[in-house]
Amino acid sequence: MSIEAVSWSNGKVKLIDQTKLPGKLTYVVTDDITVLWDSIKRLVVRGAPAIGIAGAFGVALAALKSRAKNCQALKKDVFKAADYLATSRPTAVNLFWALGRMKQAALSVEAENCGSLRQLLLEEAIHILDDDKMRCSEIGRNGERLIKEGMGILTHCNAGALATGGSGTALSVFFSAKRRGKKFTVYVDETRPLLQGARLTTWELLREGIDTVLIADNMAAQVMKEGKIGLVITGSDRIALNGDAANKIGTYGIATLAKAHGIPFYVAAPVSTIDFNIKRGREIPIEQRDASEITSCRGKKIAPGNVKVYNPAFDVTPASLIAGIITEKGLITPPYKNKILMLKKKKGCYGGK
Amino acid sequence: MSIEAVSWSNGKVKLIDQTKLPGKLTYVVTDDITVLWDSIKRLVVRGAPAIGIAGAFGVALAALKSRAKNCQALKKDVFKAADYLATSRPTAVNLFWALGRMKQAALSVEAENCGSLRQLLLEEAIHILDDDKMRCSEIGRNGERLIKEGMGILTHCNAGALATGGSGTALSVFFSAKRRGKKFTVYVDETRPLLQGARLTTWELLREGIDTVLIADNMAAQVMKEGKIGLVITGSDRIALNGDAANKIGTYGIATLAKAHGIPFYVAAPVSTIDFNIKRGREIPIEQRDASEITSCRGKKIAPGNVKVYNPAFDVTPASLIAGIITEKGLITPPYKNKILMLKKKKGCYGGK
Repeated sequence: MSIEAVSWSNGKVKLIDQTKLPGKLTYVVTDDITVLWDSIKRLVVRGAPAIGIAGAFGVALAALKSRAKNCQALKKDVFKAADYLATSRPTAVNLFWALGRMKQAALSVEAENCGSLRQLLLEEAIHILDDDKMRCSEIGRNGERLIKEGMGILTHCNAGALATGGSGTALSVFFSAKRRGKKFTVYVDETRPLLQGARLTTWELLREGIDTVLIADNMAAQVMKEGKIGLVITGSDRIALNGDAANKIGTYGIATLAKAHGIPFYVAAPVSTIDFNIKRGREIPIEQRDASEITSCRGKKIAPGNVKVYNPAFDVTPASLIAGIITEKGLITPPYKNKILMLKKKKGCYGGK
Repeated sequence: MSIEAVSWSNGKVKLIDQTKLPGKLTYVVTDDITVLWDSIKRLVVRGAPAIGIAGAFGVALAALKSRAKNCQALKKDVFKAADYLATSRPTAVNLFWALGRMKQAALSVEAENCGSLRQLLLEEAIHILDDDKMRCSEIGRNGERLIKEGMGILTHCNAGALATGGSGTALSVFFSAKRRGKKFTVYVDETRPLLQGARLTTWELLREGIDTVLIADNMAAQVMKEGKIGLVITGSDRIALNGDAANKIGTYGIATLAKAHGIPFYVAAPVSTIDFNIKRGREIPIEQRDASEITSCRGKKIAPGNVKVYNPAFDVTPASLIAGIITEKGLITPPYKNKILMLKKKKGCYGGK
């Protein structure tokens, strides 16, 4: 059975509760957007594309539940919901992109046709989800050729089905290579503090029968030095016009280590991850998360209570460390700027909408 | 009250049970060398100098408890105990060095004077402990000038009082700077899988009122990039003649990242950490530890049970990444080989014994 991180089920949004994996496969099913907001914040649903889709459904829910009596009031409720959901997490651009699409869909309807707006917004959210499935498959196909027989590939955090509406971004590449019968090993950073690698990526890879080796984050340099890694692929939460890419904290370190060991580092992400409004990575706001994530591990206290903590959720990998960006529109290589602008124009691209 | 990781108390070895810190300060008190062996293996006592001292007391215990009726039989028991204790952990050379000292002490006694051998071995173990206290202080003094006012320093794992008989190696440098009234911040890598940074180093630094910030291991590159780190100091478990240094897994990665950010990386260790028998780091055996350390965190399961794991306990940082080695005999800088050989000859040096 395929993994559906976010789906629409009987008038509600259904989310796999990723905080409970791999121990339990349970769901949050809700038609309350405050619950949805909290689910995004707490990483019940996570991964840039997946939170975009969840946000879109949140806007659809707000429209369906709105008691507005006229079109203007309904649109106002829709915009309010979108703005509220945008405050849940600041770094991944796909959320703002999806919320923007929902707003635009609302704006596209004229007052006299507003009776169907609720239905139209739900269809738009479902469309965003379906598009993402297609994009994931295309990313897999476009990246698959990077994987050579017998190779070891390192990945960080979770850029899998759990992070998207489809089969993932970085992991979609692995799934695609596996379907082609290639043999390879994926080394998975556990990804402290929230252990998305240990909990989610290993779970997804093992389900597909992919040879998987879990390591602590601080072992990445050593496995590289030992010649075990031929390639690194991660996802991304926001990409600037120059190719700088924000992703889960630790990615920048891995990219730096990959460079030092002569290992190519790739980012896999849909075009919706590109923020066409920012030139450089330094413009990307980095979410700072709660100290308790560092002073504990899966709810178990691991450090003195009075210790200070630094807990950025993301970092930015400069384009100079990125060998290529694998998108649903193809794999692009440096220099990125013009190629990224081309992606915006390419047919079927939703990134610039 | 000062921390005594290893001490001698009423005919028994007394170890702080470091697996219980920082939650509880409890002790393992034993006169059974199989319990001691297990305590070294399980990291109840850890840190290269501390396990050397624990090993020395283990040999003294074996002598005290031996029922041997003659000198030759007693020496045989002593050697057997030393060889047994040497199997507890393979990487830290201080253990073999201390066990070697105990064997040599046994050999130095002629048969006709063997009546006092048990006492002599106990005195030798106490001597090793006392020497280590002095060494730690000297390391602190020799490294202290590297710490500039307002600096941020990164450390990895625990090279503190808990890792030695005295005030530590890397941490002794911080304690020394603090006593001189310098203000600085120590960033501490949590150091998965066993979290010695989160649990032990923060605990030690906070006890001394040092400004301490805990980070996950994968955040080291980011704090470097942000300009928060001016210096890195770690301990070491074994140093080769050319200056290559084994230390807790993750150290090599940090040294590589420090190089990429133009940050000097220092190792602090007593001369007993130098293995004068090996030319290069690649000759150092690297302990592989149990998979369960990676698939769990403080006893809490964090990954699917069937996932493969790679769990090297140490890595080797090449001398080319090390700006200096801080020893009790002074701070040496590259090229290391001749300076390391000089350390062996320097008065009061126990490393070559």
